[in-house]
Amino acid sequence: MDTRIPFACDYMEGAHPIVMQRLMETNLMKTDVYGADHFSESAKAKIREACEAPDADVWFFVGGTQTNATVIDSLLLPYQGVLSAVTGHISIHEAGAVERGGHRVIMLPQKSGKISAASILKAVETWRCDGNRAHVVMPGMVYISQPTEFGTLYSLRELTEISETCHENGLLLYLDGARLAYAFACEENDVWLPDLARLCDVFYIGGTKCGTLLGEAVVFPKHDLVPNFFSIMKQHGAVLAKGRIVGIQFDTMFTDGLYMKICRPAIEAAKKIRTALTERGYTLAIDSPTNQIFISMTKEQIEALSENVQISYMEEIDETHTMMRICTGWSTTEEDVEKLIALL
Amino acid sequence: MDTRIPFACDYMEGAHPIVMQRLMETNLMKTDVYGADHFSESAKAKIREACEAPDADVWFFVGGTQTNATVIDSLLLPYQGVLSAVTGHISIHEAGAVERGGHRVIMLPQKSGKISAASILKAVETWRCDGNRAHVVMPGMVYISQPTEFGTLYSLRELTEISETCHENGLLLYLDGARLAYAFACEENDVWLPDLARLCDVFYIGGTKCGTLLGEAVVFPKHDLVPNFFSIMKQHGAVLAKGRIVGIQFDTMFTDGLYMKICRPAIEAAKKIRTALTERGYTLAIDSPTNQIFISMTKEQIEALSENVQISYMEEIDETHTMMRICTGWSTTEEDVEKLIALL
Amino acid sequence: MDTRIPFACDYMEGAHPIVMQRLMETNLMKTDVYGADHFSESAKAKIREACEAPDADVWFFVGGTQTNATVIDSLLLPYQGVLSAVTGHISIHEAGAVERGGHRVIMLPQKSGKISAASILKAVETWRCDGNRAHVVMPGMVYISQPTEFGTLYSLRELTEISETCHENGLLLYLDGARLAYAFACEENDVWLPDLARLCDVFYIGGTKCGTLLGEAVVFPKHDLVPNFFSIMKQHGAVLAKGRIVGIQFDTMFTDGLYMKICRPAIEAAKKIRTALTERGYTLAIDSPTNQIFISMTKEQIEALSENVQISYMEEIDETHTMMRICTGWSTTEEDVEKLIALL
Amino acid sequence: MDTRIPFACDYMEGAHPIVMQRLMETNLMKTDVYGADHFSESAKAKIREACEAPDADVWFFVGGTQTNATVIDSLLLPYQGVLSAVTGHISIHEAGAVERGGHRVIMLPQKSGKISAASILKAVETWRCDGNRAHVVMPGMVYISQPTEFGTLYSLRELTEISETCHENGLLLYLDGARLAYAFACEENDVWLPDLARLCDVFYIGGTKCGTLLGEAVVFPKHDLVPNFFSIMKQHGAVLAKGRIVGIQFDTMFTDGLYMKICRPAIEAAKKIRTALTERGYTLAIDSPTNQIFISMTKEQIEALSENVQISYMEEIDETHTMMRICTGWSTTEEDVEKLIALL
Repeated sequence: MDTRIPFACDYMEGAHPIVMQRLMETNLMKTDVYGADHFSESAKAKIREACEAPDADVWFFVGGTQTNATVIDSLLLPYQGVLSAVTGHISIHEAGAVERGGHRVIMLPQKSGKISAASILKAVETWRCDGNRAHVVMPGMVYISQPTEFGTLYSLRELTEISETCHENGLLLYLDGARLAYAFACEENDVWLPDLARLCDVFYIGGTKCGTLLGEAVVFPKHDLVPNFFSIMKQHGAVLAKGRIVGIQFDTMFTDGLYMKICRPAIEAAKKIRTALTERGYTLAIDSPTNQIFISMTKEQIEALSENVQISYMEEIDETHTMMRICTGWSTTEEDVEKLIALL
Repeated sequence: MDTRIPFACDYMEGAHPIVMQRLMETNLMKTDVYGADHFSESAKAKIREACEAPDADVWFFVGGTQTNATVIDSLLLPYQGVLSAVTGHISIHEAGAVERGGHRVIMLPQKSGKISAASILKAVETWRCDGNRAHVVMPGMVYISQPTEFGTLYSLRELTEISETCHENGLLLYLDGARLAYAFACEENDVWLPDLARLCDVFYIGGTKCGTLLGEAVVFPKHDLVPNFFSIMKQHGAVLAKGRIVGIQFDTMFTDGLYMKICRPAIEAAKKIRTALTERGYTLAIDSPTNQIFISMTKEQIEALSENVQISYMEEIDETHTMMRICTGWSTTEEDVEKLIALL
Repeated sequence: MDTRIPFACDYMEGAHPIVMQRLMETNLMKTDVYGADHFSESAKAKIREACEAPDADVWFFVGGTQTNATVIDSLLLPYQGVLSAVTGHISIHEAGAVERGGHRVIMLPQKSGKISAASILKAVETWRCDGNRAHVVMPGMVYISQPTEFGTLYSLRELTEISETCHENGLLLYLDGARLAYAFACEENDVWLPDLARLCDVFYIGGTKCGTLLGEAVVFPKHDLVPNFFSIMKQHGAVLAKGRIVGIQFDTMFTDGLYMKICRPAIEAAKKIRTALTERGYTLAIDSPTNQIFISMTKEQIEALSENVQISYMEEIDETHTMMRICTGWSTTEEDVEKLIALL
Repeated sequence: MDTRIPFACDYMEGAHPIVMQRLMETNLMKTDVYGADHFSESAKAKIREACEAPDADVWFFVGGTQTNATVIDSLLLPYQGVLSAVTGHISIHEAGAVERGGHRVIMLPQKSGKISAASILKAVETWRCDGNRAHVVMPGMVYISQPTEFGTLYSLRELTEISETCHENGLLLYLDGARLAYAFACEENDVWLPDLARLCDVFYIGGTKCGTLLGEAVVFPKHDLVPNFFSIMKQHGAVLAKGRIVGIQFDTMFTDGLYMKICRPAIEAAKKIRTALTERGYTLAIDSPTNQIFISMTKEQIEALSENVQISYMEEIDETHTMMRICTGWSTTEEDVEKLIALL
C-alpha cells in the first residue's frame, strides 16, 4: 500500500458518507431490477428537475468509458465520426472503445484542453470541400468535457457558440461531465445543468469522480432522441442487474443539493495549493480553476516531491521540464493539504 | 412499489450484510485505482487459492453480459463462433452483445438447460464435413452455465466429458457461473472450484446474484492465456475506475468461506417450496435442484398466485399451460417462504 | 485442372459472350469513376424500368456476401437481427459476415429451403411475449432467396403472404436473387421483377451466377430508404473504383431482355437430367424446378459418378444416403448433358 | 459524358488490351471457384517468383479499401491501431473502413505524403511513456503507400529505416501498392518487389490503377502469418466467386514483365507535362516523380484549364492558391498529352 499523501487522482476512495449511509439503509429492501426500481425513478425525476428538462430521458451507467462508447454509438450513423480535442478522454484513454463501435475520433487542436467553435467549423468545411466527401468519415457529433482533461472550464459564451456551430452544421453535441461537480463548485463557472440541457443533445453527470462508488447519469434533454436506448445499453453490457445501486446514489446526490456542493472542499484545497505553489516559485503549466493542478517541474523537483506525495505524470514539456498533476477531490482533507504545502 | 411477496428473481436487494459492512469500514481509505488496489489483490489471491490454481489470472467485472461479451471476444478469432444451448443466457438475454463483437452464437439443442458432449461433437463434425467449411463460422468455444438457466447442474462426469470433447476438438470451454454459489450450496453438486479450474479454460464466479452489490470474478486458470486482457476490458468499457469496489466485495466473499455457504438459505427455501408445490399437486416443469423452481401452471393458477406473489413468466408449454418461475435467493426469509406456501 | 464433366456449380466460367463483347468494345473509353459513369446510369435506368419502379435506388456490388452484409447492416438497428432459413446463405456460407456487422441471424425452420409467413410470425411473437424483450435481439428483417439454396421457388402467393406478415409486424423484407435469372427462365415461376419491387423493401438481381464476370444489382424500390448508402458501401469496401465494370455488364444484361432468357438452357438441361435420373431410378431429394438438382445417393453411386462428373456434396440424409447436387448453368452445353446422362 | 481531355485520375478506362485479350480467350473455360483455379495458382507462382519469396502467401482482392480493411483487421489485435500519414488513403478516403474493424488510424505528420522512421518512433514512445498505456490504443502496425498519395517514392534507404524501426518496436509494416507499377516505371525508384518482400510483413501489388479491370494482389512474404486468412476474407465479403477473374489478369500482368513496364507511358507523359508546366511558369506544389502532378494554381488558372481538361481538386494552399492534380495513366495517349500542353 502506498502511504504517501494521496494527490494522484480523484477516485481513490469509496463514496461520500451520506451516500454510503443511504446504501446501507436500503440494503435489504427488495425492489424491481434493471433500473426499474423506485429509487432510480426518484433519482431521474430529481435530475430532470435540476436540469429544468421535464421530458428528458435519464439513464444510469457504471463508468465513463462505457458511457462514452454507448452514447456515441447510439447517436452516430456507421460512417460518421466524433470530433474531439486531441487531449479528450475518448482520444486517449479509452483504449479504442469508440473505434470498437466503428467510429473514428476526429481529433481537433486544443488549447488548455478546450476546442473552439472555429475549429469545429473548419473540420466540417474540410469534409464538405472534399470532392469525394462520400468517401470521407462524416463529422456527426462533437464531444467535449466540462471540466476538460486539463481542468479548464468552457464559459457559457463558449459553450453557446459551440452549440450553435454544431446545430447549424448538423452535428450533435455531447458533453462528458465526469467531473461536473468540480465545475459546479467553482466560482469561475457560469454553466449550470439547465444550460447543459438547453445547449447539448446529450451529456452525462459524473458520479464516480464526484462522490459515488461508481455511476454516471446520462441525460438526453429531448425524449426518445434514441428509441430503444435500453437495448443499446444492454448490447453494450451496460445494464446493471441491480440498477438501484446507481439509482440510490444519484437520488442521494440530488437530495438537498449535495451534488452542487460536494466538491467545494476540493476546490478550496486546490486554490490553497496553487497559491502555495506560486509563492514557492513553481510554474503552473495550465491555468485551470478546478481540482486539477498542472505544474511544470524539473526532474529533481519531481523526485523530491514524489518521495512523500502521490502525484501524476502528464507529459514532457521540454528537455528539462515535465508536466505533473496534483489532484484534489471531494474527500481531500485539510490535513493532507497542509502536509503537502509543507513539502513544496 | 411492488409489495407482493418477492420471488421474482435473485437480485432484488443490495449485498450481504457482511459485504456491506466491509464496504463501510473501508470507505474512506485511499487506494490505487483501476483494480490495482490491495483489496483486489487480496481477493484475487484468495480466489486463486480456492481454485487451487496458483497461476490463474483473475479479473473483476461489473455484470454478466459485459463479462460474457468481453471474455468471448478476447478468446475467439474473428471468424469463430461460440456454441451455446439455445436457452443459454448469451443465446437469449444479452441483446446481441456477442454478435456486437462479431461472433455468432451457434445454438445447440438442450435438455433442462444442459447441452451434451455429443451435441458439441456433432456441431464440430457438421462444420468439418462441409466442403466449404472455410466459408462457415468455425466453432471456437463452448459456453455453458453452472447452474444453467433452468437451475440444473452439470455433474462432474458430464463436465469432464464436455471438457474432453472441447479440448480434443480445439474448442475452448467457458463456464458462466452467475449463480455458482447456488450450486455450491446444493447437496446434489459435485463440481467445485478446483474442478472448474482444471476443466475450463475460463469461467466466472458470479457476485451480483450471489451476495454482492455487483461484480463477477473471471478466472483464467492458465496465466496469460489472453495477453493484455486489461486493454480488452478497457476497450469494452469494463474497467471500473474504483476497481476496489468489486475487489473488497470478493475479498469478503472469499473470507471464512462465505461464498461457499451464502446460498444455503436459498436452497433450503427452494426445497421447502418444491415439497409444498408437489404436495399441493402442482407439476414441476423442470427437475432443478437449485434456487429456481419451474412450474407448469394454468392461467387461473398464475392469476391467483400473482395476486400476492411476484413470480416470473418463462414460456408457453402448451395451449393451457405456461412455465412460471419461483426464485429464491440468499436473502429469502423464512417468513416469506411460509407466506408463499400458505398461498399455494 | 479438373477435366471431368463440369456440373459442380453455376459460376465456373467467365461471362456471357455478349457481355464480354461489350466489355471489349468499351474497354479503352474513359469514363467517370466509382459508378458515376454513363454505363452504370444506363444500366440503372433499365433496371428501374424492368422493375416498374421509377424511383428505385439501384447500386452495384461485386459479390453476394458483400451485398448481403452491406444491405443488412444498412437497414438494421444495432440490436436487431435478421430472420433467415437455417439453410439460408447468410446462415451458413458467409463466414459470419452478418455477425461482423453486429447482427444475429435468427434461424427459422425451413422446408425445401423455404420459410413460411407463419414461422416469421411465430418468431416475432416469441420476442414480443418475452417479458424481458428489451434484452432480446429484436427481429428487424426477413431474408429469403429466390430461388432458395435448394433451388425451390416462392410462389407469388407465398411471397405476398411473407411480405404482408413482415410489414404488419414492422419487419423489412430482403430478397437475395443471386440466381434470380434461373427463376425467370423457369415456367413454374410466377414472381417477376415488378412483384419484387412491390413486395420487398430491398432485393438484389444476381449477376455472378447469371452470366456476368461478377456483380450484383441491389434495388431499393423506395428512393432514399437508406440515406448516404454510398458511404455505407465504401465503408464496407464495396465500392468499385471502375464501377463501370459492373455497370456495363448489367446494361448488357438488361438490353433486349437478355437477363430474362439467359438461363433457359440451364433450365432445359436440368429438366432433361431430372427426367433421366428418375427413369434410371434415382431419388430426387428435393423437388426443385430450377437449375440445381438434389439427389439422394449411396456411397457407391457417388463414387461411380464422381469418377467422370463434378458433383457437389450437400449433407448426410441417413446412414446410407447422402444428398448430392448436380448444377447446370447458362453455359451448360447440350454435349455435356448428353455425356452426363449416358453415365447415370 | 465528360468529353474534356481526361487527366482526372488513373482508373477511367478498362484493362490493358493484353489483359482483356486473355480474359476473352479463357472466357468459356470452366474452372474451380473461389480462387482455387489454375489461373490464380499460376499468377500466385509468378508473383512469388517476382518477389523472390518462394514461401509467400498471395491472395487476390477486388479493390483497395477492401484490401486495406481486411489486411489490417487480420493482423491487429482488437486494441491496436495502425500508424499512417494524415494524408494516407486509410486516413482519409476509406469512409472509416478501418474503424469499422474496430481499429484506430493513428495519424502521423507527413512531408510530401511520406512519414519518417523518426515519427514512427516518437508515436511508439508517446504510447510507452503513458503511465496508463494499457488504456491507450497500442501502436500495432505501420501503413505506408508506394507511391504515396502525393506521388512520391520512399527510397530503399528510407524504407529500410522504417522497416527496422517497425521491427525493433514490435510493429508490423504494411505497404499499400495501389499504384506500385508507377513506381516501377520510374527511373528514380530503387525499391523492387524482392525489397518489399524482405522489408514488409505484408504489401499489395495494385491492379485496378495499373492495368487490370479490377484486382489487387496481397503478398504475405512469410507463409501462414495469418492462419485461415481465406475465412477472414470471406467474412469481409472479399472472396470473389469467380476468383479466376482476378487471377487471369495478374497472371497476364506477371507474364513477360508486363507489370514492370506497363506504366512507362504514364511516367513519360507526366515528365513532359511537368516540363511544360515549369516552362510556362506554373508552380509544382509537390516534387513527385510518378504519374501524379500537383500544381499550385489560382482560381482563374483552374477555371481556364478546367474548361477543356479534367483535373482534380486536392486542397487549399492559401487564400489565393489551390492544389490541383493532373494524373496520367498507363493508357494516356501522346495525343492527349500534346493537347493538354497546348492548353497550358
